[in-house]
Amino acid sequence: MTTPPDRTDARRRHDPDVRGFASDNYAGAHPEVLAALALANGGHQTAYGEDVYTDHLQRIMHSHFGPTAETFPVFNGTGANVTALQALTDRWGAVICAESAHINVDEGGAPERMAGLKLLTVPTPDGKLTPELIDRQAYGWDDEHRAMPQVVSLTQNTELGTVYTVDEVRAIVDHAHGLGMKVHLDGARIANAAAALDVPMRAFTNAVGVDVLSYGGTKNGLLFGEAIVVLDPAVARHMKHLRKTSMQLASKMRFVSAQFEALLAKDLWLRNARHANAMAQRLAEGVRQVDGVEILYPVQANAVFARLPQEVTRRLQQRFRFYFWDEAAGDVRWMCAFDTTEDDVDAFLLALKEEMARA
Amino acid sequence: MTTPPDRTDARRRHDPDVRGFASDNYAGAHPEVLAALALANGGHQTAYGEDVYTDHLQRIMHSHFGPTAETFPVFNGTGANVTALQALTDRWGAVICAESAHINVDEGGAPERMAGLKLLTVPTPDGKLTPELIDRQAYGWDDEHRAMPQVVSLTQNTELGTVYTVDEVRAIVDHAHGLGMKVHLDGARIANAAAALDVPMRAFTNAVGVDVLSYGGTKNGLLFGEAIVVLDPAVARHMKHLRKTSMQLASKMRFVSAQFEALLAKDLWLRNARHANAMAQRLAEGVRQVDGVEILYPVQANAVFARLPQEVTRRLQQRFRFYFWDEAAGDVRWMCAFDTTEDDVDAFLLALKEEMARA
Amino acid sequence: MTTPPDRTDARRRHDPDVRGFASDNYAGAHPEVLAALALANGGHQTAYGEDVYTDHLQRIMHSHFGPTAETFPVFNGTGANVTALQALTDRWGAVICAESAHINVDEGGAPERMAGLKLLTVPTPDGKLTPELIDRQAYGWDDEHRAMPQVVSLTQNTELGTVYTVDEVRAIVDHAHGLGMKVHLDGARIANAAAALDVPMRAFTNAVGVDVLSYGGTKNGLLFGEAIVVLDPAVARHMKHLRKTSMQLASKMRFVSAQFEALLAKDLWLRNARHANAMAQRLAEGVRQVDGVEILYPVQANAVFARLPQEVTRRLQQRFRFYFWDEAAGDVRWMCAFDTTEDDVDAFLLALKEEMARA
Amino acid sequence: MTTPPDRTDARRRHDPDVRGFASDNYAGAHPEVLAALALANGGHQTAYGEDVYTDHLQRIMHSHFGPTAETFPVFNGTGANVTALQALTDRWGAVICAESAHINVDEGGAPERMAGLKLLTVPTPDGKLTPELIDRQAYGWDDEHRAMPQVVSLTQNTELGTVYTVDEVRAIVDHAHGLGMKVHLDGARIANAAAALDVPMRAFTNAVGVDVLSYGGTKNGLLFGEAIVVLDPAVARHMKHLRKTSMQLASKMRFVSAQFEALLAKDLWLRNARHANAMAQRLAEGVRQVDGVEILYPVQANAVFARLPQEVTRRLQQRFRFYFWDEAAGDVRWMCAFDTTEDDVDAFLLALKEEMARA
Repeated sequence: MTTPPDRTDARRRHDPDVRGFASDNYAGAHPEVLAALALANGGHQTAYGEDVYTDHLQRIMHSHFGPTAETFPVFNGTGANVTALQALTDRWGAVICAESAHINVDEGGAPERMAGLKLLTVPTPDGKLTPELIDRQAYGWDDEHRAMPQVVSLTQNTELGTVYTVDEVRAIVDHAHGLGMKVHLDGARIANAAAALDVPMRAFTNAVGVDVLSYGGTKNGLLFGEAIVVLDPAVARHMKHLRKTSMQLASKMRFVSAQFEALLAKDLWLRNARHANAMAQRLAEGVRQVDGVEILYPVQANAVFARLPQEVTRRLQQRFRFYFWDEAAGDVRWMCAFDTTEDDVDAFLLALKEEMARA
Repeated sequence: MTTPPDRTDARRRHDPDVRGFASDNYAGAHPEVLAALALANGGHQTAYGEDVYTDHLQRIMHSHFGPTAETFPVFNGTGANVTALQALTDRWGAVICAESAHINVDEGGAPERMAGLKLLTVPTPDGKLTPELIDRQAYGWDDEHRAMPQVVSLTQNTELGTVYTVDEVRAIVDHAHGLGMKVHLDGARIANAAAALDVPMRAFTNAVGVDVLSYGGTKNGLLFGEAIVVLDPAVARHMKHLRKTSMQLASKMRFVSAQFEALLAKDLWLRNARHANAMAQRLAEGVRQVDGVEILYPVQANAVFARLPQEVTRRLQQRFRFYFWDEAAGDVRWMCAFDTTEDDVDAFLLALKEEMARA
Repeated sequence: MTTPPDRTDARRRHDPDVRGFASDNYAGAHPEVLAALALANGGHQTAYGEDVYTDHLQRIMHSHFGPTAETFPVFNGTGANVTALQALTDRWGAVICAESAHINVDEGGAPERMAGLKLLTVPTPDGKLTPELIDRQAYGWDDEHRAMPQVVSLTQNTELGTVYTVDEVRAIVDHAHGLGMKVHLDGARIANAAAALDVPMRAFTNAVGVDVLSYGGTKNGLLFGEAIVVLDPAVARHMKHLRKTSMQLASKMRFVSAQFEALLAKDLWLRNARHANAMAQRLAEGVRQVDGVEILYPVQANAVFARLPQEVTRRLQQRFRFYFWDEAAGDVRWMCAFDTTEDDVDAFLLALKEEMARA
Repeated sequence: MTTPPDRTDARRRHDPDVRGFASDNYAGAHPEVLAALALANGGHQTAYGEDVYTDHLQRIMHSHFGPTAETFPVFNGTGANVTALQALTDRWGAVICAESAHINVDEGGAPERMAGLKLLTVPTPDGKLTPELIDRQAYGWDDEHRAMPQVVSLTQNTELGTVYTVDEVRAIVDHAHGLGMKVHLDGARIANAAAALDVPMRAFTNAVGVDVLSYGGTKNGLLFGEAIVVLDPAVARHMKHLRKTSMQLASKMRFVSAQFEALLAKDLWLRNARHANAMAQRLAEGVRQVDGVEILYPVQANAVFARLPQEVTRRLQQRFRFYFWDEAAGDVRWMCAFDTTEDDVDAFLLALKEEMARA
């Protein structure tokens, strides 16, 4: 894998030098991750997670999340979230989450459709729940007419690029536990959050009592792969069965686990996250110099939300891939990835200035 | 990828020269598949299937299954089957399948749990349905007290290593269609079947009227990856929504599609399948020389089922990985993979003879 | 049944002269309904809806909802709603409704749990949707990441005692149909709405294009029994199968249908509804005379929502059964039923005045 | 209710003197049950089960099933079974039952569709499970690829009219519990079984360790109404939530409970069951006198299964309502109900002889 791919290879169907700001999952995989796949290849390994790579991943995750953490690799984020939430709920249970949460707006209704979960949503100013906001849905446990709130699901970092502080997560967990509820953390971008807070990932997960988390690998540099990390051992008992019935059990699991090993055994996860966050900061600083473009939320991780004239956005989209967040309002989202370069950011800022000047 | 991986690499956790006969998904990926991943890496590509590799895969699949085939890459076989069956059934629909079908015995109840599907099963002598066997469950369409049979699902090749002939599939499809039912083909080992029959895959799918198939990539040499191939265009309409709600939508889908391209653009799929089948024939021929070991089903693809004394099996399992199929009866299953070598087979046969001699 | 029940009968466990304002389903059944059960009893009738009473009910419903209406008796309101919504949605479909809708807040999550339906909710000032409010959730049909909006469900009259005008329903239906969505009307109190509007029930259902309605019998004077009335014949095709799999198929259905016949063949439904509405008006007029008690929504049917000091409510609840609607705000709900008497209302108003005077 | 209904009443749509042998749910309700409804009517009672009739029913059920039994009235048998089975299973659980069980063949796939339950079925000679038959499906608890067997569901009496002895039920319960599984008894005709065995119902339920039963009221003489009786208190904890989400919570529950009181407070349940059983014995004795008609299973309760020429059956069906059980084999089912008379049986036997003589 140290041999760089031949860019003239006839089978390469895309330009490896083109990057945009549409999503951190538009990026490919980090080369160290690809290299790990090659090392894990060859020979036979027991399927369905009984391989040595998955076994070793358990120990790697212990170094991040403590010795009782149990890790269950799965395919994607929706799978991780829906499987994890099933482990935390009875058949009659419901999940409290922010109205903007990925499980509510971006999973095609999979939590309801596949797991029968009712989501009890709360509007938030910045994508972050608080004990007070949770209380708007946290009631009625004895009332059979109401789906029973059994879990609080928070997203770290949030869909709006904001990051819960350690204290904020602790307050939520304490509040939820005090009410008899469990806490799930959707960590699709957990590495970016740790990098932003400059704390170990454990600081806002097992150290403060989170019960289960969806660990996001894809956006952090894998080809694919997420993991359910169970921090409350009582929950882990039948996770294997839930993963299977939820269609998330990989047969050649060594290829998920080996990727995670590349990411997490040393500091690749942190390097990737810090880089993406730094690029978002560079982008935000540049944007703040441009009159007429408003930054909407604190830029705390790898996302920049901004408001600018729709016609400027449309012209700019001809030059760089990115999405409207709320077209009517003129809001857009710019995401940085582990492979975004300073040149990418600077070229984008230049284009933004040019298009704004034409407005 | 042409550089062989360094076997002394400290991060390699397993011996790439050890192979067994437990399952074709104990194998790794074919090196050409890994190479394709490297080529697809780098730069940004639209997520969720709007990338150029997935687009190109559509055309490759047309060459195999005709110009109206629509291909939907997914993660795994359970996901492919459950998603495909949802596309073919109403909320009140049921699926007729062999009692031995993977969807009935090996998916943890995912069809029932995730899709609410009732499976109407039929015992079979050799894993193969027939029109007559289907008729044992094909009735009661107007009777609301009965889950409505809407699909026949057959497995090619079967769980027992047998292969439907083209005529057998055609007879089933004609019969099912005549009764107003659709036909799903679980092609987890479709390449092995085509190699065994020495016909193109289309011969027993679109050419005879199969409506939807689950195309198996993993056992044919991918790291992971299956595809739903929709042959009846009427079915395809909302497959994207079903794939998403079924938690089978890969964000970096280019990495699934590029693997499939490596497999299917030329003849890698067929080379891999022919090799695995040939190894099973070599194994079967050797086994037939061993007194006291009975081969249970016709060896038509890459599986050999045999009956031998349980204590012999247990000793042999100390030397080679494989599974009991029915421990009480003394039945075992030996699977060959794309990477099984003649030496592997010969060494196994030698061990079998030695252990039988000690019986 | 003309013989009045013996109030001294040892088996009578309650005082038939005590009524409260807690809910219209605290009432019993109208005597004419009980009499109809006696007439339908005796002899054998085909089970599961093939009886003469259910057959006749079809024709009665034609007189109310036109000659193409198809009626499917079920057990209860949750069953009617969840079954009807399944008939209007694909597996990936979602339902737009008011945040205050019964399907969202009072069915224990049954729509999500039993039918996998995502509810896309909208806050409303008075329980009523409008085209503009619907538009807040009506988008993204091609986006597989979003549960597809396929139905608008409105409640007539609403949970807040308000009533859509004919024009308001027509505007919603036209808007929904224009967007390719179907319209479900939860008519748990449809009779009260018709009485309030002084129009036939058809005026705000089939005449304006509603596709399916849940017809409420229980609160209108039955012992139990609701019906799904399908106004769009295309929807009716497999309703029988949906009713069965939704556990709503009564074996001795004649006893549901005969009750509906008593209600709907002549004007019992309207007499009951008018009476309940009139009692609510009498109550509201009385309440308006009491200083310090605020009526919260227009009193258009059989419910009065009011705000008063919590300690007054608690004392009053010692004397009459009724519920807080929002305890923190001091909001209460007073419901009138078909059997509420003028004396009941006057006694309640007297008690209210007494308790307010002690405040 | 002591006044007999006027048979000339214009609203009576059927002949109360016509009865057949199609099903025990073709019968109406026992007059004492109707009378109980009248007594329970009038005044207001708290909805959703907080009424005095439901409270009293608890104590009545204690007299039958012991002081820890908890009773949850529901609407119908499918509802009772599917709700009860959810209470006994995790999300990944499966249910072992006879292939002929009602939950497998007559509930439209509701267990799979509504509760995601996989049924692990076993063919039986006479509808009855045994420990040995259970063992054909009772394995693989640690294997995530297999839906986990967590419940054995038996039907008493069976769909084939046979009755488990007390010892047979005890052996099944002991076996299931020994394997860590719970036991559900589908008692749609539990009263007939008790009458047939001449033992109290407790003898083959709580006395031998059954965990939960579906108590059948409808076929025993109610208008409608079944009950889930929870014998293992650990199971009861959230049954109220399961009943609600399963759409089985009656608002005016007093009308279900009052019917059960009429049935169970004294001996109406037993009188009705004994009578139906006696009629089946009379029928069977008569049939045995008819050459060419074969009785298929031991006649132990209120069903007679027989084999006779199909053309005779078809002619006989012109005169009396009854069903083919297996048309190809010539098998029919004749059911007796609580209201079947000796004259009904004798007239049917005469007709049978006449039609056989024409064969």
